[in-house]
Amino acid sequence: MGRTAIRNICKVSLDIPAEQQPKLHNRWHPDIPFAGTIQNGETVKIECVDWTGGQIGNNDSADDVRNVDLTKIHYLSGPFEVETAEPGDVLLVEIMDVQPHQDHPWGFVLNTWNKREGELISANKLDRIVAQPPNPTNVHAGSASGDMKEKVGREGARTIPGRPEHGGNCDIKNLSRGSKVFLPVHVKGAKFSVGDLHFSQGDGEISFCGAIEMSGVITINFKVVKNGMVDLGMKSPIYLPGPVEPHYGPGRYLTFEGFSVDQHGKQHYMDVTVAYRQTILRCIEYLRRFGYSDYQIYLLLSCAPVQGHVAGIVDIPKYASEAPYYSTCVTCACTTLGLPMDIFDFDISPTGPAKKLDMGSCAYETGASESRITNGGENSDHSFGGGLTFKKKPTLAENLKEKVVGP
Amino acid sequence: MGRTAIRNICKVSLDIPAEQQPKLHNRWHPDIPFAGTIQNGETVKIECVDWTGGQIGNNDSADDVRNVDLTKIHYLSGPFEVETAEPGDVLLVEIMDVQPHQDHPWGFVLNTWNKREGELISANKLDRIVAQPPNPTNVHAGSASGDMKEKVGREGARTIPGRPEHGGNCDIKNLSRGSKVFLPVHVKGAKFSVGDLHFSQGDGEISFCGAIEMSGVITINFKVVKNGMVDLGMKSPIYLPGPVEPHYGPGRYLTFEGFSVDQHGKQHYMDVTVAYRQTILRCIEYLRRFGYSDYQIYLLLSCAPVQGHVAGIVDIPKYASEAPYYSTCVTCACTTLGLPMDIFDFDISPTGPAKKLDMGSCAYETGASESRITNGGENSDHSFGGGLTFKKKPTLAENLKEKVVGP
Amino acid sequence: MGRTAIRNICKVSLDIPAEQQPKLHNRWHPDIPFAGTIQNGETVKIECVDWTGGQIGNNDSADDVRNVDLTKIHYLSGPFEVETAEPGDVLLVEIMDVQPHQDHPWGFVLNTWNKREGELISANKLDRIVAQPPNPTNVHAGSASGDMKEKVGREGARTIPGRPEHGGNCDIKNLSRGSKVFLPVHVKGAKFSVGDLHFSQGDGEISFCGAIEMSGVITINFKVVKNGMVDLGMKSPIYLPGPVEPHYGPGRYLTFEGFSVDQHGKQHYMDVTVAYRQTILRCIEYLRRFGYSDYQIYLLLSCAPVQGHVAGIVDIPKYASEAPYYSTCVTCACTTLGLPMDIFDFDISPTGPAKKLDMGSCAYETGASESRITNGGENSDHSFGGGLTFKKKPTLAENLKEKVVGP
Amino acid sequence: MGRTAIRNICKVSLDIPAEQQPKLHNRWHPDIPFAGTIQNGETVKIECVDWTGGQIGNNDSADDVRNVDLTKIHYLSGPFEVETAEPGDVLLVEIMDVQPHQDHPWGFVLNTWNKREGELISANKLDRIVAQPPNPTNVHAGSASGDMKEKVGREGARTIPGRPEHGGNCDIKNLSRGSKVFLPVHVKGAKFSVGDLHFSQGDGEISFCGAIEMSGVITINFKVVKNGMVDLGMKSPIYLPGPVEPHYGPGRYLTFEGFSVDQHGKQHYMDVTVAYRQTILRCIEYLRRFGYSDYQIYLLLSCAPVQGHVAGIVDIPKYASEAPYYSTCVTCACTTLGLPMDIFDFDISPTGPAKKLDMGSCAYETGASESRITNGGENSDHSFGGGLTFKKKPTLAENLKEKVVGP
Repeated sequence: MGRTAIRNICKVSLDIPAEQQPKLHNRWHPDIPFAGTIQNGETVKIECVDWTGGQIGNNDSADDVRNVDLTKIHYLSGPFEVETAEPGDVLLVEIMDVQPHQDHPWGFVLNTWNKREGELISANKLDRIVAQPPNPTNVHAGSASGDMKEKVGREGARTIPGRPEHGGNCDIKNLSRGSKVFLPVHVKGAKFSVGDLHFSQGDGEISFCGAIEMSGVITINFKVVKNGMVDLGMKSPIYLPGPVEPHYGPGRYLTFEGFSVDQHGKQHYMDVTVAYRQTILRCIEYLRRFGYSDYQIYLLLSCAPVQGHVAGIVDIPKYASEAPYYSTCVTCACTTLGLPMDIFDFDISPTGPAKKLDMGSCAYETGASESRITNGGENSDHSFGGGLTFKKKPTLAENLKEKVVGP
Repeated sequence: MGRTAIRNICKVSLDIPAEQQPKLHNRWHPDIPFAGTIQNGETVKIECVDWTGGQIGNNDSADDVRNVDLTKIHYLSGPFEVETAEPGDVLLVEIMDVQPHQDHPWGFVLNTWNKREGELISANKLDRIVAQPPNPTNVHAGSASGDMKEKVGREGARTIPGRPEHGGNCDIKNLSRGSKVFLPVHVKGAKFSVGDLHFSQGDGEISFCGAIEMSGVITINFKVVKNGMVDLGMKSPIYLPGPVEPHYGPGRYLTFEGFSVDQHGKQHYMDVTVAYRQTILRCIEYLRRFGYSDYQIYLLLSCAPVQGHVAGIVDIPKYASEAPYYSTCVTCACTTLGLPMDIFDFDISPTGPAKKLDMGSCAYETGASESRITNGGENSDHSFGGGLTFKKKPTLAENLKEKVVGP
Repeated sequence: MGRTAIRNICKVSLDIPAEQQPKLHNRWHPDIPFAGTIQNGETVKIECVDWTGGQIGNNDSADDVRNVDLTKIHYLSGPFEVETAEPGDVLLVEIMDVQPHQDHPWGFVLNTWNKREGELISANKLDRIVAQPPNPTNVHAGSASGDMKEKVGREGARTIPGRPEHGGNCDIKNLSRGSKVFLPVHVKGAKFSVGDLHFSQGDGEISFCGAIEMSGVITINFKVVKNGMVDLGMKSPIYLPGPVEPHYGPGRYLTFEGFSVDQHGKQHYMDVTVAYRQTILRCIEYLRRFGYSDYQIYLLLSCAPVQGHVAGIVDIPKYASEAPYYSTCVTCACTTLGLPMDIFDFDISPTGPAKKLDMGSCAYETGASESRITNGGENSDHSFGGGLTFKKKPTLAENLKEKVVGP
Repeated sequence: MGRTAIRNICKVSLDIPAEQQPKLHNRWHPDIPFAGTIQNGETVKIECVDWTGGQIGNNDSADDVRNVDLTKIHYLSGPFEVETAEPGDVLLVEIMDVQPHQDHPWGFVLNTWNKREGELISANKLDRIVAQPPNPTNVHAGSASGDMKEKVGREGARTIPGRPEHGGNCDIKNLSRGSKVFLPVHVKGAKFSVGDLHFSQGDGEISFCGAIEMSGVITINFKVVKNGMVDLGMKSPIYLPGPVEPHYGPGRYLTFEGFSVDQHGKQHYMDVTVAYRQTILRCIEYLRRFGYSDYQIYLLLSCAPVQGHVAGIVDIPKYASEAPYYSTCVTCACTTLGLPMDIFDFDISPTGPAKKLDMGSCAYETGASESRITNGGENSDHSFGGGLTFKKKPTLAENLKEKVVGP
């Protein structure tokens, strides 16, 4: 007798609206019903829609990106019950495989937000976008309906932000095949969900989604580590990356530095965010010489397996009141960005003046063009492009990534 | 006839005070006289004192760390004239070797600052420590004397902070043997200096110096890239790491996550510094279970080849006025810390409750002890330990590092 | 308009006998008709049957392995015409993806031959098996029929042996996604074929097939390098491995040595084959301690990403008559086998006596059992089969491999 | 009080003939007196002369290579007593550091034997050179003298060949800093010796010494694993490589293939030696296009960190009488040679016709020249020498290697 096939615990349809599929949800709430049950030790397949639930089409216009309804995102498959999991346990999740859907094998290309959207949001970003408060609009509570669904909508946390307690939305570059993730269990049965698979991403999610998004199938093995939170001294997830992330060798990363001195010459005290922004700008300036538009570089740096390192930031832990760690700072923050030169099919090494190549162009939304956007700035009201339709494209060595979001 | 030995362009003495040695200096100023001349294309050896200029002895007390005179630090060898280098050129520096001094082969162990020092500095840290203004006290202007030395003292930039324009003090983990660094040239002859060699360090310089410091000898090849700043579109240094950094394989990094939610539960908007601090705290809590004191973990994380990544921070570049990059943020910052499990001579993998081991203790300053310090906090007036005298020590696979500081 | 889907140039059926499918063939002959045409620069998908053409079922008996008809193997998809390719050119083949067939997602597990088969063959192995002479039985000449097919059967080279002139059957561990292979072109249109995909394999093909075989789909980009054979000084294929082979770090390979001293104590002069056999035996003896049967170890070493190195064999090139290379030998051959410890889900490091685990058992052919086989030897008259149905199995980190065989 | 310095257990002089230094020896014999005692768990430094004992000078003539007295080689430091080591134990040797001697920091460049020497030896090579029988001429038995020394000379095994029972002369590329070697103990006190340090080497020792030889200092930690040979099922040494071997990434190895079909078109049955020779010839032909002479390529491939893999050789273990392993072979041997492209300071990737560069020339012995040697062959009567004095030299990224030879 042959071996048993791996059970597919969550089939999704790419033709039915996400909000009508009971094994999907887009809020976190303990009352969302289980979408299925997984045995402790079992390996299952789980299908996922893309993070928007199919709002973005496979086309060369950026309109659908501009028009994404952000109250819907993002859709996860689950929550699944893992048998024997109790609060205080740890769920050991080993990713056996990640594959794009065969019939949607393309991913949509990341886009940066346009200016108008940005200004709209920036006016109240602490209340609405940054903090991502509960929002009943377009709540999808899986198979819950009626009062239960209303409660989830009223109370349920948005699925989109990363949160330290449970692991999602972590978007970590090297969480892919072969990785083992240890997730704290907070509710009986774990209520594990997964979704928002990425075809490719780099460190830092440099533009909007920071990845090539996709729908797909993920194959996962589950094991419950009883009493794991105490035994492992664990507050946030930990993981062991798998062995198949793209591997280039240290000497093939052309590495840029940035310090916490901003573009106005102002030095910021230990501000890694400022330093990392400067680091990326150095890389953008470097790549621009080869004929890429800034939009293309944005997209490229978001999808390519770049390495973003916190190189030097003295005295990090330094708790104010509760910890013994204390030290005095004498320097400013320094970060680096390593760009793997081997993803390009031409030589980008620093050997002299660059020869500009014809790099094609991105997709734009209706009415926009590259020159108009480039001349924009603060007063411009569009600002994103899309579509990795470079004529001279990086080879983007296969870099299949995913994101695990847990209980 | 045999091949010519590599020229040693800078011999230093470990027995003569640093301030009396004319090939050292501790300020940046274009008027500091050249300490020697290097041909374009030449490979030379350059000896360096440790960054404090010998203020820290090879002993088991932390008093000398507490008493370091910070107006003196840090001492560099140079500045050297590189023939044919002109402003606008780029200096290509290839590090052929880094070795500790044979007669001081130990390095001094990093220390975190004590509490009193911290409080003293925090009161005016924006003026004195954070910004590192010129300070004539203990200026060492190489061979300059009289009015020139006074001028350097009055105007000269401290050598200690990293600055984006010239590369030092960058303290980047993987800048060691085999690395090629491209440095912008701002003055005729380049005025290249080097010093503050590290025996070992990790990403992020988590405690005071963030490294095992040492005096030593560095062997460097120099090449001038004429007009390189324009040709390479370069504002800050770039580099290609060498092939000999410690290499562990992705699956052997036990990886911790942190988000920009601080220890009081407050969420910070895209604050990588907060996220990285949280990440490190997760690692400290994990390692504490094996019997390490927090001081030991601090030291360990500073010296070990840890990997600190900016995992997810959407919309980094977002220039206010001058750039076309614009996007709207929907998430918070996430960073990771990868701890190589293979530097330990016992198993730290997440397999269950940890068995506490006897890890020995750090060195303390006169009158201090671990318990006293641990019970400290904001009112405590000592807070640092030192000395990697762990009874159960990590094997600290050889991780020789250095820091290049340039013109 | 969306981007064009990648063209599938060769659909195969797993339900129709391989010999009835015109886009397959199992002999090399320039008269085999083209199975399709690929543009210079095009990326296509090519489906492949497994190397036996479906002779081995997905079951737990080894009978079908014993009964494989070796006159049929092995089946390749092709030959394809690559436009503009002329003799003397080089075909640059970049492997974009390799996937198992969705409906046969299991691979069959490698098996070593049984004793009787071995004895039968050994009697005339120089004539029949080792040299693989043309054999008209079961010839499959693609769409050719009649006289043409008969000619191919009479003259056509078997597809099974590797040959230096064209690259197949090379079975090289790290030829997978992202690899670029440069193949000499000997006939107009190149007549490129591909097949015998592997799900996983290690260096050295230690047992029968040396891999987990599978049917599947390979996505390839083709580029013609005009006059490449002369320009690249190329007689045999060369390649650049892709970046996604499993990556463990040097310190995680438990490494065994073997010298050219055989099990009878006889020293052989520079015999790498003897040395490598001894190396593998050292590894088998080591793993046996954990409870594996020798059969299981065989299968494991064939499929796992082991590293087999020629460590020391002085004076290799030393041509007798035609070359200037000359040297005198003073030592014997030494080879190593690196076993990645991270593919096991228990600790195999050399820390003391091994604890035997229950490893389950392999599949056997009808009437065979492990004990009977183990007591066999030269007089034994049956083979044994496989099946990676270990109760305590290595995790076999995903290690998708393929084999390119070209004109 | 500072930490104790690491004890140097073996100081050697580069000015005194090796045969007069009692802590060196050049034969294996259990009666050679201990040269010192090491505690179980201790870390010590051990100085070593180069393998010839100083017969080769730092000059540009190859005469001294031609004239090397091979009855003297090779000199090891030791044998040292490791306290508590008994037969049946295993000695765990961790290499903490390897450094060249400060006052001889150059290494001598490997050479292949000259033709005359080769012909002399080839007449009786199975008796004299290949088997390396005991040879009393120039025996150096450490501190032994008189009858004891005569006995060692009469019976003592030459130190030069590798032997499976004890680990030396293994010449394995990645045995360097950070490596842990497990050596079987055959005599009380272990009688550990070490020497023949290499500055750099690749897989396969392609020419005479296969490395850049050097004198130097090695720092080693010793631990005795009681009863280790039984507990670890160990007949030959095993090891775990260290984390600092040069690291290039799989995609930067330009890889050549060779099959067991020799230059006369004859196919050899599973002959890895033939296959590896062909593989190297393919690489030599490739590099020749850039202007290197064959001699230079020989030297380069010997010293560079090339990877030589046994790619496919089916059915390796196949014991004749004593083992259950049995299988039938259907293919021939295939090996690969991976040449790291990043050790060159020009681009060697297969992008088209090569541009010949001026590569300078090797050193030759008195009266020889490149052309004369190249025209030689079987009738030539002299060897050639080396010297990595390439005008366009590979950068030879630091690749410090050593060889451990044990009890």
